[in-house]
Amino acid sequence: MNDISGDGRGMQYDPMTFEPRTYVEGTAAFADGSDSPSAYLERCLDVIAAREGTVKAWVTLNEAGAKEQADASTARWKAGAPLSPIDGMPIGVKDLYMTKDMPTQMGSPLYAGRITGEDSAPVQALRLAGAVILGKTVTTELGFSHPGPTTNPFDSERTPGGSSSGSAAAIGAAMVPAALGSQVVGSIVRPAGFCANTAIKPTLGALHRGERQGLSHSHLGVHAGSIADMWGVAHAIARFVGGDPGSPGLYGPAAAPTAEKPRRLIVVESEGWEKTDDATRGAFETLIGRVAAAGVEIVRRAGHGDIEAFEGEIDGSLALCRDICGWELLWTLRNLAEKDVTQLSESMRTRLSLAEAMSLDDYRAALAKREAMRGRFRAVAATADAMISLSSAGPAPRMREAVGQQGEPGVTHTTGLPAYNAWTSAVGCPCVTVPMLAVDGMPVGVQVIGRHDDDWRTAGIAGWVQETVDPVVG
Amino acid sequence: MNDISGDGRGMQYDPMTFEPRTYVEGTAAFADGSDSPSAYLERCLDVIAAREGTVKAWVTLNEAGAKEQADASTARWKAGAPLSPIDGMPIGVKDLYMTKDMPTQMGSPLYAGRITGEDSAPVQALRLAGAVILGKTVTTELGFSHPGPTTNPFDSERTPGGSSSGSAAAIGAAMVPAALGSQVVGSIVRPAGFCANTAIKPTLGALHRGERQGLSHSHLGVHAGSIADMWGVAHAIARFVGGDPGSPGLYGPAAAPTAEKPRRLIVVESEGWEKTDDATRGAFETLIGRVAAAGVEIVRRAGHGDIEAFEGEIDGSLALCRDICGWELLWTLRNLAEKDVTQLSESMRTRLSLAEAMSLDDYRAALAKREAMRGRFRAVAATADAMISLSSAGPAPRMREAVGQQGEPGVTHTTGLPAYNAWTSAVGCPCVTVPMLAVDGMPVGVQVIGRHDDDWRTAGIAGWVQETVDPVVG
Repeated sequence: MNDISGDGRGMQYDPMTFEPRTYVEGTAAFADGSDSPSAYLERCLDVIAAREGTVKAWVTLNEAGAKEQADASTARWKAGAPLSPIDGMPIGVKDLYMTKDMPTQMGSPLYAGRITGEDSAPVQALRLAGAVILGKTVTTELGFSHPGPTTNPFDSERTPGGSSSGSAAAIGAAMVPAALGSQVVGSIVRPAGFCANTAIKPTLGALHRGERQGLSHSHLGVHAGSIADMWGVAHAIARFVGGDPGSPGLYGPAAAPTAEKPRRLIVVESEGWEKTDDATRGAFETLIGRVAAAGVEIVRRAGHGDIEAFEGEIDGSLALCRDICGWELLWTLRNLAEKDVTQLSESMRTRLSLAEAMSLDDYRAALAKREAMRGRFRAVAATADAMISLSSAGPAPRMREAVGQQGEPGVTHTTGLPAYNAWTSAVGCPCVTVPMLAVDGMPVGVQVIGRHDDDWRTAGIAGWVQETVDPVVG
Repeated sequence: MNDISGDGRGMQYDPMTFEPRTYVEGTAAFADGSDSPSAYLERCLDVIAAREGTVKAWVTLNEAGAKEQADASTARWKAGAPLSPIDGMPIGVKDLYMTKDMPTQMGSPLYAGRITGEDSAPVQALRLAGAVILGKTVTTELGFSHPGPTTNPFDSERTPGGSSSGSAAAIGAAMVPAALGSQVVGSIVRPAGFCANTAIKPTLGALHRGERQGLSHSHLGVHAGSIADMWGVAHAIARFVGGDPGSPGLYGPAAAPTAEKPRRLIVVESEGWEKTDDATRGAFETLIGRVAAAGVEIVRRAGHGDIEAFEGEIDGSLALCRDICGWELLWTLRNLAEKDVTQLSESMRTRLSLAEAMSLDDYRAALAKREAMRGRFRAVAATADAMISLSSAGPAPRMREAVGQQGEPGVTHTTGLPAYNAWTSAVGCPCVTVPMLAVDGMPVGVQVIGRHDDDWRTAGIAGWVQETVDPVVG
């Protein structure tokens, strides 16, 4: 059971007892009538009522609409005709994506109260799968650095991470079993790790981003309480709307990934390692020792020239992401600045001025660097079953300490450093994070990083780690 | 000089005397004060006033705003400080792209009166280059098959082609020197050919489509009266906003392409040849004879196994485009149908029902076929300097005859068949069409088709054809 700690700052995180909310495994009870999607939704709403005042995960909740959707799902399960394995699942949608029945405000006053009357592609897919679209979760400003009001469910003085702040926090607080997130630098895996989520940043393009095609390596992904729920949501999106235009979409069966023991894993240090505190490093090394003790061969840069060269190639990924995103955002930011530049945060104005200093040739140089990273990744990734690394450079920072952190060079991050994530976003490979560490009483995630289109197997390896290896309390 | 024919149906097309409106070559007169962008704009407005009643190329005109923009440009040229070679050029924008000072209505009643208050990326780029954004040009419904009110400037009983109907007609009527178009099947090159434009469908991704990233092989392109103006507009877009996210953008210098004689050209027949009338075939063969007589080696499928195999590979491109566009449009069409299905044309409802019958596996099969086409194109294109083909299966059909034409199988086209264009859109190679033929008193275009990223050279070869070879009156 999850306990609310006595000091009012949230639940203490204990990896041995923390119970995230899950859905798919319990749906057998919907058929025999001992449980129902309607009753499930009520349990979610009870937790939200108890914890939202502090966690602030939601921008908009559509309780009445959700109850109607859950009732319809209850009837389908009773009739033995659910639309998919996630029929009736209450889901939070990051407030960057359109919902026809709620505003889409993108964490910016420039979009306050904006109603599109349309569903983004993944939201439409989830409705076709029978899911209950419960509400919109807080995002940082336009999905970048400037934070929203959300707090970490395990300590309200800490950030939940960003930009998928509300989605990660809602899972960590056990408010819902799944929520949509997106990542162009470190916006799924980092907050998921900070909030003890299981989450996937899939292969680039594997899940349809709907109208949000403006950034060439942004990804739609899923935050959840379990591998099975995470996969169920991802698979439903691919089934009903596919991947991004031009992409073959997520590969893999409807069935949840089965735990798969890897033969060999590559430990990746990346830019994150030198920014990581000693306690977190120590906990990660202990975990890797346990993985090795379970019979998995571990290799890393020391003594492996190809891995060393790969680590060299991905160095500078934070700057690379800043430049690629900057140039790609430029025309949009110019439009917003012309409307009302005072409604952009200082952080976003910095991004705009950095991007205005770029030329098309600078952007081409960044794309060439990204291609080189992708090439070297493919060559190295083929030598093992997967890679493994931390999901963040430590537990979620306290918000007052996070203010001065430099993420992408020149850009201040207030939601923790994406130093373990930028390279994976640029490369576009699948990453699945699972909550395997506790440091300073807070969760820290570990991510399994697979080859392109190996999403199902990557989730299976992450599931094996989660099932087989004891979490480490550092 | 252009003559207005006596029967009120438009100008008779005579390729020896037709004079399109041009801009870049005349800007020297802006510096010495003998002409000015303001005076140039007035001449455009005079033609629009005389001809728009019949041609109906424009959805929205912003005369007052255009005059202000032209006056500002006049001052820059006088001061010797134009922002680019196209500073002051009046430009029409296909009404699929956002303009901050005009509605963006997309040829659909579902978007009637829609104001976004933002500029799409290419429009923003053109403003930064000093161009005058004169108005929005008619598009077919959402850029597909259902026609708008525009008529062909050379015969008002004929279609201007689609979907860039207004842009092509505005150039053919010499209303403006350039206009933006877009092509996902045959929407730039076909109407450009019907209306005696010079036009480019560039390499896929080379010009930024702004918010319109939803179709994986749609292209932004330029309709113009000359190669120099066409290139000036394209280059300005790439300079200020680049290409699509993830694309390196249009390659080539700012300077207009110089005429370049090819050593060898491949004649491509494609699905278009068997749908082409005898007079047009004859005129094209005469033209090819003249190109050969000028010392260019001509090769085609007969006797060349690799070209024959390529022709086989691209057969079925119309069906391929229907399937790829259908799946990619599906989520958007579902949203629009839910809003008000009666506001979708019968043609669009057909597209929706065809797409609803598809699965993700069907889409993957279509992508695999497209990849195979691209591979075989690269192998064959490398054996010559460029390819050459008709731009359409004959002159613009009379509107009452066009109604029953099958374009993509199962979909009715009312703006002429895109049978020479679908494969080039799917492959994503650059195409430059020039008005080289007259058939039945109407213009017919011929397109030069180059290798990926060879846009500048492709335009140079098209320019060589235009400069060197006499047009054929069939």
